[in-house]
Amino acid sequence: MTLVNAQIRLAARPIGLPEPSDWSYLEEPAPEAGDGEFLVKVEYISIDPAMRSWMNAGRSYIPAVEIGEVMRAAGIGRVIDSRHPDYDVGEHLYGAFGVQRYAVSDGRGATRVNTALAPAPVHLGVLGISGLTAYFGLLELGRPEPGQTVVVSAAAGSVGSVAGQIARIKGARAVGIAGGTEKCRWLVEELGFDAAIDYKAGELRSQLKAAAPDGVDVFFDNVGGEVLDQVLLRLTRSARVVICGAVSQYNATGPMLGPANYMQLLVTRASMTGFVIFDYADRYGEGVTQLARWLQAGELRSREDVVQGDIAQFPDVLLRLFHGENTGKLVLALEGGG
Amino acid sequence: MTLVNAQIRLAARPIGLPEPSDWSYLEEPAPEAGDGEFLVKVEYISIDPAMRSWMNAGRSYIPAVEIGEVMRAAGIGRVIDSRHPDYDVGEHLYGAFGVQRYAVSDGRGATRVNTALAPAPVHLGVLGISGLTAYFGLLELGRPEPGQTVVVSAAAGSVGSVAGQIARIKGARAVGIAGGTEKCRWLVEELGFDAAIDYKAGELRSQLKAAAPDGVDVFFDNVGGEVLDQVLLRLTRSARVVICGAVSQYNATGPMLGPANYMQLLVTRASMTGFVIFDYADRYGEGVTQLARWLQAGELRSREDVVQGDIAQFPDVLLRLFHGENTGKLVLALEGGG
Repeated sequence: MTLVNAQIRLAARPIGLPEPSDWSYLEEPAPEAGDGEFLVKVEYISIDPAMRSWMNAGRSYIPAVEIGEVMRAAGIGRVIDSRHPDYDVGEHLYGAFGVQRYAVSDGRGATRVNTALAPAPVHLGVLGISGLTAYFGLLELGRPEPGQTVVVSAAAGSVGSVAGQIARIKGARAVGIAGGTEKCRWLVEELGFDAAIDYKAGELRSQLKAAAPDGVDVFFDNVGGEVLDQVLLRLTRSARVVICGAVSQYNATGPMLGPANYMQLLVTRASMTGFVIFDYADRYGEGVTQLARWLQAGELRSREDVVQGDIAQFPDVLLRLFHGENTGKLVLALEGGG
Repeated sequence: MTLVNAQIRLAARPIGLPEPSDWSYLEEPAPEAGDGEFLVKVEYISIDPAMRSWMNAGRSYIPAVEIGEVMRAAGIGRVIDSRHPDYDVGEHLYGAFGVQRYAVSDGRGATRVNTALAPAPVHLGVLGISGLTAYFGLLELGRPEPGQTVVVSAAAGSVGSVAGQIARIKGARAVGIAGGTEKCRWLVEELGFDAAIDYKAGELRSQLKAAAPDGVDVFFDNVGGEVLDQVLLRLTRSARVVICGAVSQYNATGPMLGPANYMQLLVTRASMTGFVIFDYADRYGEGVTQLARWLQAGELRSREDVVQGDIAQFPDVLLRLFHGENTGKLVLALEGGG
């Protein structure tokens, strides 16, 4: 029986929100594993805001996805055939398998997933790149001290929700910015944030002042735009701004909106530093160990927004991110068969 | 004989470039030194871009000058009367004496000026706050390493010209951005910059690429706006951007222009940090000693743009800064009399 490999490839570089015509859906015979390779059947695909930036041409922290290429995506799959001495059929692996049903790998960039520790989607969220981004970004660049105020934007997202919880665990005051009362309720009542700001419910400036009356010592920013600009006005002396993303700007059709209030960095002697998780690859083990410990102790909660579907649904699922529809880690779970 | 104290006071908060109606000129009897005070006759007034920001209301790194107050200014003056045990008539002092002919001081913030070491205007430039700003801003936040590329904006100004020379002394490649061929010639031929970019003479992007082919490891920014945005596109991995000023924006009548390319901080894992010299007050001695040593060894050149005049000319002299008319440290030297 020939396996059918459904794929989503990039068809055009989007202007603004990706449209159906920016993608092509293909079915082709699944590849076969050569010597030193194995074949993975992808079961879960990680849906990340950064995907939008990978679709653009130009200098970024990793190469752009080329037109005609399978869309880049991290995922978890099961080894179904192996000609690699270190990988056995049946093992669950994490890797950059792309938006497709089957992928061949030589093991580079693939790591084993312990599904006994937590279900697979958790390994794409709190115990995956999202959690690691929050962990190293907040602790290495944000460096919150007990009693300080940490503000996190896109706080109900996969990275922000973990960053705020780590801030709380470290004894800081955690303030989340999110869209909608339900997300804000979740942050405060279930994740233990000290305060949440609903940016859809009124003026950000006054809400920030109320939620962070002593100012903002650390800002972990996933959003950019107006949110960044408003938080800059509330920085304390020597504050740290961690630039982790700018989801408000990824689909902008005009020029990026730069932070007009950036001279507040001078006023407060603050720093703004760009963060990319890949730089901490040799410390992932340390991060996962700590995150798993907090998870098992109940200090850290995970939430995955798992959409059941097939490869063809990827374009629609991706748009949920940019419409702010997800809470926690957005994952496309591929239905059986194939 | 009653001494007449000519003064410039702030009359209104300017919108855009300061206009004559934003100032008031007054003459009043000079104050008298009380117990523990001395009277200074101001001889030189330091003209600084930051003055424009002090004229605005709102949060900044020092309080705004209030309407009706004597305009804040650093200067050098001579003690002409003293009821302070530590200060003698005839001594030259540096201090925040304001835009006025006579000032009373209790000695706080005043420091002795060694006019045997260098003429008074040099103590407002290379050996003063300008030189110290370049010294600590570049070395503490920029941290250039030998062989790295340091770009300085407003490079023909009092701070930029010193920052570029220190970069060169430290073995870095010094690239200055300035307006006009004469300024650029001076930077390269007299100050030893490795390259200079005339932002008035064509596209900044291609000039930057030619002058900094390996990218920009340190950007010492006094300008902001388009210059900052273009340099962000050339940053190397882990580059440092020192935010020392934003003179292109100080007279903007609309909102500040934020750096639209700030996400390059993420791409390159760079940092952007605000710098205020006052934070290094307890290390001024160390800085001045080193700067004086370089000056005497001929490794560092000073240049002062000294305008002879009286207090009433201050508003016009200040505008020279914003029209890019000065090269080196702009100083108003007050004529005798009074």
